[in-house]
Amino acid sequence: MERVLLDYGSGGKASHRLIGELFLKYLGNEILDRLDDAAFLHIGSPISMSTDTFTVDPIFFPGGDIGSLAVHGTVNDVAMLGARPKYMTCGFIIEEGLPMADLERIVESMGNAAREAGVLVVSGDTKVVPKGTVDKIFINTTGIGEIFVAEAPSGHRAAPGDAILISGFMGDHGLAILSKREGLTFEAPVLSDCASLNHLIVRLLEAIPEVHVLRDPTRGGLATTLNEIAGQSGVECRIFESQIPVRPEVSGGCSFLGLDPLYLANEGKFICILPQEHAEAALAIMRSDPLGADAVQIGNVRGEHPGKVVLETPLGGTRLMDMLEGEQLPRIC
Amino acid sequence: MERVLLDYGSGGKASHRLIGELFLKYLGNEILDRLDDAAFLHIGSPISMSTDTFTVDPIFFPGGDIGSLAVHGTVNDVAMLGARPKYMTCGFIIEEGLPMADLERIVESMGNAAREAGVLVVSGDTKVVPKGTVDKIFINTTGIGEIFVAEAPSGHRAAPGDAILISGFMGDHGLAILSKREGLTFEAPVLSDCASLNHLIVRLLEAIPEVHVLRDPTRGGLATTLNEIAGQSGVECRIFESQIPVRPEVSGGCSFLGLDPLYLANEGKFICILPQEHAEAALAIMRSDPLGADAVQIGNVRGEHPGKVVLETPLGGTRLMDMLEGEQLPRIC
Repeated sequence: MERVLLDYGSGGKASHRLIGELFLKYLGNEILDRLDDAAFLHIGSPISMSTDTFTVDPIFFPGGDIGSLAVHGTVNDVAMLGARPKYMTCGFIIEEGLPMADLERIVESMGNAAREAGVLVVSGDTKVVPKGTVDKIFINTTGIGEIFVAEAPSGHRAAPGDAILISGFMGDHGLAILSKREGLTFEAPVLSDCASLNHLIVRLLEAIPEVHVLRDPTRGGLATTLNEIAGQSGVECRIFESQIPVRPEVSGGCSFLGLDPLYLANEGKFICILPQEHAEAALAIMRSDPLGADAVQIGNVRGEHPGKVVLETPLGGTRLMDMLEGEQLPRIC
Repeated sequence: MERVLLDYGSGGKASHRLIGELFLKYLGNEILDRLDDAAFLHIGSPISMSTDTFTVDPIFFPGGDIGSLAVHGTVNDVAMLGARPKYMTCGFIIEEGLPMADLERIVESMGNAAREAGVLVVSGDTKVVPKGTVDKIFINTTGIGEIFVAEAPSGHRAAPGDAILISGFMGDHGLAILSKREGLTFEAPVLSDCASLNHLIVRLLEAIPEVHVLRDPTRGGLATTLNEIAGQSGVECRIFESQIPVRPEVSGGCSFLGLDPLYLANEGKFICILPQEHAEAALAIMRSDPLGADAVQIGNVRGEHPGKVVLETPLGGTRLMDMLEGEQLPRIC
């Protein structure tokens, strides 16, 4: 079986072959094909720019792989500012000895994800490092997009009276990774929800530019992301436990592993906070898209406890949902 | 001694402390301080965009460290397209257990390098991975800048009759890394040349917009980079061995290690290819800057052997300088 050698990252002939035969095959376009030190791009200002490094273990998991995840993750972060993601760079760090077939599968998956999201990969970098100095493959993606709303959504804009919506079930990605890593099998297999949300976001914001906050609850999950928003905006996020959609198999898996699904990573969901009077219209748009089919309102923004996330239990009690100190779930994305 | 724990990469409280107390301390600015998923940026089109991942070993070396190198490398790639680098993202992958003092030294060094280059770090990402899954720290930087010349320099634009200039001594970075890694000491210690070239590039292009090609000869060195240009432009690059500046200590170290300095990485030098009639003016501008003090013309572009780099030896013979198959010098940048 052919494997990735150190030579492939040298900048010499072997590198150029790898770029030509593999990267350009799946990611190529008029801009990338020029292979200059930097890409020459046209873009309208203002722009949204975001970076993310993916170290997920395992690199192939139910519902996706590190390649598609690396595209989805950055597309989503760029889109959350009210932007159309346009261009992306990819930085690969590959462990010497990685099977070439694995690399090809990952790069092909990136190409498909980028095409679906409508994003061009315009510049890249490949480092191959000696066996043992990185685990298999890590990928950085950095994206830019054109902001098309007059006032960009931001974690700083949540206001008392706003509704808090989420686009679907919580915790799928986190549990899919953990169950694969731990070798657990459930009756109904849990798939990662990883997906690019940009087309749905564009439709939502074109119809309802009044959206205050868009955020994807990735690392740290819904609870951590709402804490960030509550802190940035100086408001209370009040959510209702019975309204938060969690699949029974995720809920069951979490009980078994001693985890809370509200702290588990999602990679194809978003939180939308907007004035209550626009909530129904926003939910209708979200539900018209397969990626938002299970969208619901889970709470609202209040002024009572600034910086806090308060969970109302089904019995009417309340509980503070603090940010955790750490998660002890490394390499979830 | 305090060390980086997995918790610091979790997205929870520990992550937020690390971001607040370390990253924002050295890299903070109005844009980064907002800590949204993406940065909101104003920039003029067209733009130049480039990405690079740094895996250099050792992380501290004579003349620099992985932090300053990560800034210089991407600033230079962005600038080579005739652009003013403006914004940069940073993606950190940190091995659990890295001394916090090392991380702080690296981030402080990045902050200083970014300030000198006039670039803002606007978005970032930090992953901490379990001990043994990455070697100490790897850093991705991705930059964007505004292209200010009517026709951007490109590896595709070299034309017969052009002069080939370089901005100074070849091989310093490569030999500095290798000598530190191998524990070699020379009478005169060799320092990495790593530096941001953008201010010099701007002055050069404002005075002489007729420049055809700018390229920094990093991985693979002068020989590999000229081969890329010769291939992209379909021309011959003819260079004169006696004109190529190499420090005696680099030349001596290379003899000892069995290496050719023309294939060693540089991190603060650039190749400039432009019509011969502008060569003297370009050299005068380059020499007026400490980063180009030793600039010289090393050859010219011809039509005879398209895609080839031909070296004329001091005795008048010629030798083909091919691209190497691989380099076997991993983790040089």
